[in-house]
Amino acid sequence: MQHQTANDTICAIATPSGGALSVIRISGPEAISIVQTVFRPISGRALAEQPPYSVCLGHLLDDNGEILDETLATVFRAPHSYTGEESVELSCHGSQFISQQAAALLIMHGCRQAGPGEFTQRAFMAGKMDLSQAEAVADLISSTSAASHRLAINQMKGGFSRKLDELRSQLINLTSLLELELDFSEEDVQFADREQLRLIAEDIEATLSRLAASFKSGEAIRKGVPVAIIGRTNTGKSTLLNLLLNDDRALVSSIQGTTRDSIEDTSVIGGILFRFIDTAGIRQSDDTVERMGIERSFQIAEKADIILLVTDCSQPETENDTELDNMLKPIIQSKTLIRVHNKADLTRTVPEGDKVNIYISAKQEINIDTLKLMLTKAAPIPPNDTDTVTVTNMRHYQAILRALDCIKRALAGLSDGTPADLLSQDTRECIHHLSDILGEVTTDQVLSTIFSRFCIGK
Amino acid sequence: MQHQTANDTICAIATPSGGALSVIRISGPEAISIVQTVFRPISGRALAEQPPYSVCLGHLLDDNGEILDETLATVFRAPHSYTGEESVELSCHGSQFISQQAAALLIMHGCRQAGPGEFTQRAFMAGKMDLSQAEAVADLISSTSAASHRLAINQMKGGFSRKLDELRSQLINLTSLLELELDFSEEDVQFADREQLRLIAEDIEATLSRLAASFKSGEAIRKGVPVAIIGRTNTGKSTLLNLLLNDDRALVSSIQGTTRDSIEDTSVIGGILFRFIDTAGIRQSDDTVERMGIERSFQIAEKADIILLVTDCSQPETENDTELDNMLKPIIQSKTLIRVHNKADLTRTVPEGDKVNIYISAKQEINIDTLKLMLTKAAPIPPNDTDTVTVTNMRHYQAILRALDCIKRALAGLSDGTPADLLSQDTRECIHHLSDILGEVTTDQVLSTIFSRFCIGK
Repeated sequence: MQHQTANDTICAIATPSGGALSVIRISGPEAISIVQTVFRPISGRALAEQPPYSVCLGHLLDDNGEILDETLATVFRAPHSYTGEESVELSCHGSQFISQQAAALLIMHGCRQAGPGEFTQRAFMAGKMDLSQAEAVADLISSTSAASHRLAINQMKGGFSRKLDELRSQLINLTSLLELELDFSEEDVQFADREQLRLIAEDIEATLSRLAASFKSGEAIRKGVPVAIIGRTNTGKSTLLNLLLNDDRALVSSIQGTTRDSIEDTSVIGGILFRFIDTAGIRQSDDTVERMGIERSFQIAEKADIILLVTDCSQPETENDTELDNMLKPIIQSKTLIRVHNKADLTRTVPEGDKVNIYISAKQEINIDTLKLMLTKAAPIPPNDTDTVTVTNMRHYQAILRALDCIKRALAGLSDGTPADLLSQDTRECIHHLSDILGEVTTDQVLSTIFSRFCIGK
Repeated sequence: MQHQTANDTICAIATPSGGALSVIRISGPEAISIVQTVFRPISGRALAEQPPYSVCLGHLLDDNGEILDETLATVFRAPHSYTGEESVELSCHGSQFISQQAAALLIMHGCRQAGPGEFTQRAFMAGKMDLSQAEAVADLISSTSAASHRLAINQMKGGFSRKLDELRSQLINLTSLLELELDFSEEDVQFADREQLRLIAEDIEATLSRLAASFKSGEAIRKGVPVAIIGRTNTGKSTLLNLLLNDDRALVSSIQGTTRDSIEDTSVIGGILFRFIDTAGIRQSDDTVERMGIERSFQIAEKADIILLVTDCSQPETENDTELDNMLKPIIQSKTLIRVHNKADLTRTVPEGDKVNIYISAKQEINIDTLKLMLTKAAPIPPNDTDTVTVTNMRHYQAILRALDCIKRALAGLSDGTPADLLSQDTRECIHHLSDILGEVTTDQVLSTIFSRFCIGK
């Protein structure tokens, strides 16, 4: 695509208030000259004469010439900046008053307040990164676990883009073979061996299918692997949940469930974000309530990748337990069931577990680390391998599904003897959908939707 | 005082999470070498070979060599840094995960997590600023209005320190004159003319008194000028309060009052922070409740610098109004009373106000700007004059009160014919208290108390 340059200069406070420092970013053709109107270096050259990539101490002055702050200014020269434009970063004392006043001064002298993600959007426009890399910046900022961070860094480094490039080369190759035929259609020659074309198309389909399938684990990584905790009341579910959540209090957030009966809470265990879905507990009072409780737990279990079925191993098994077990069978086909036998401290000896059974005491914190290890092993997360490409973005996922549709149509056409011109329409459309992810055919509206999920100042 | 250098290297995340960028500060003898173990420049020289005050783009690497982030590193060389030490600032993508991991890596490689204010404490230890200037940094960060910001900037620039230095020179002069006498005491000569000494001491006392008196306005500037809004229910107090508070919603905070009957809310008007204390309103139901309401309003009015007495000018004045008025008289001696005649929109014509009377309509927003102007004029704030020194800090205030005691004793001694050796004890003690403010005689315990009110990373 053609690189575009913006003709106005934007500014934004890039750090939240309440810290020791606050950073204000300015980018655009007038960045240095606008900053010069409010910034006086304490010694040495004027800002415009500073070498690029250098830091300069000075005073930020208001329009009465009063000192607003002692500030560091870093000068970046186009195209060697984040946005590819002339840029300045001002590092002020972390006062909300100072940063707001400074931003107001810059705006008064010709800057425009940047919109969300506008710095990254400019980097994309200037060809510093493709769209999937730009989107990874927002993911990187919001990453809360090692796994989600790794995905975002990999995508930002261009891992995903390279994979798409490979696919596209294959598709272009396929399309050109098909279109070569068209040029000589009057001669009724099949240049391209249909069998060879089918192998290429199958290869592309397999890769697209793998990418589409990776979205589920991508989702799990970004939003947390859903784990349902089900069991009767008084089996110690809450104590267990608190133990699992306390693992990393700083990163725990509470999400009120869609129903009043379930609460979602996330926690990072072994570098993976888990989303624990707690049920109100299956009560034993009477049959109707019991039935409703089981129903509810089942609905939650349906949404989960992992089910922790908590029982009280200090009590003899009841008919209800067996019944619950039988009812769970049909839904656990694609899930991992871990049977957590709690209150093992009340039994004479803590039994050895196996692949699906673990004996713990949430109260005495027995075997909790083993349970955490079972959870991290059961998480449907790709191996810690930077070459594995995972789709994490809904927009990318939808584009890949559309591309997959096209290549499937092309494959069916190859079997049916569909003419080359119709086949090449499908493969061209497939290329279009992949290019969409990289931002090569994306419209302005799509762009503004993408960048609106960024924070201001990025 | 002797400058001290720290022998360990500290690091801290200097920006809150949730922004586009996060900055990590590292300072100490090993700052550059520790950062080098986790930072690999993308091109060009190693960090240690970078010129000072330069920025370098590179990758932050974890211990497996995996890229944690693309990061800017700014190198500062001792003594040309904030702390006066070797320093590095890392500017990362604003992800809590990244900044926490980066800090953990730095700590693993030999940094120590910095305590609150430890960077500024090091700047003080290295002689980059005196203690009152260091304290101003914390005030600067927490300043929320133009007035509190101006005080902090002035103190940071050394305005307060210079004033104290002048005073100290005068005191040293006075002391040396007194002690010269002692050296020749056997000869029974009065070298120093007592009258001349008295004039110097009186001058010092006047300056110290002025500084002590300025504390009240300093407090008002930092915590907000207290304004009591009193009046009967249905006079439109709440509407007025909301109007005054809405002036600057971004800077408004709610403080639950000590009693359930009053709410404090702050708002910046004309660059000055006001603290509005709202009363529940004086009810007219019966005599006992009425009495209690007036009592309560009086207690609140006692705490205020400005009293807004709100009445409904569309209603005829009642006996109760006159009674309230009479009761207010004794407490308004040292305060400004503004009579706010509300609901002027219900009268035929809005009467002209005068210095104490203003006719407004809170509902129709009539004359609100005039009321605001009256408030800013009534605020006991020193003029916008950078030469005026205002005491804002409780520690400084107490030291000045102690110094004032000493000089008063010395003055009394000069009248009583107290011997020069006793007089010089008083003046020496006076010098001691002033030096305490600048940090020249301050103990470690005082230092750690002062810096503990800073945020981490400053």
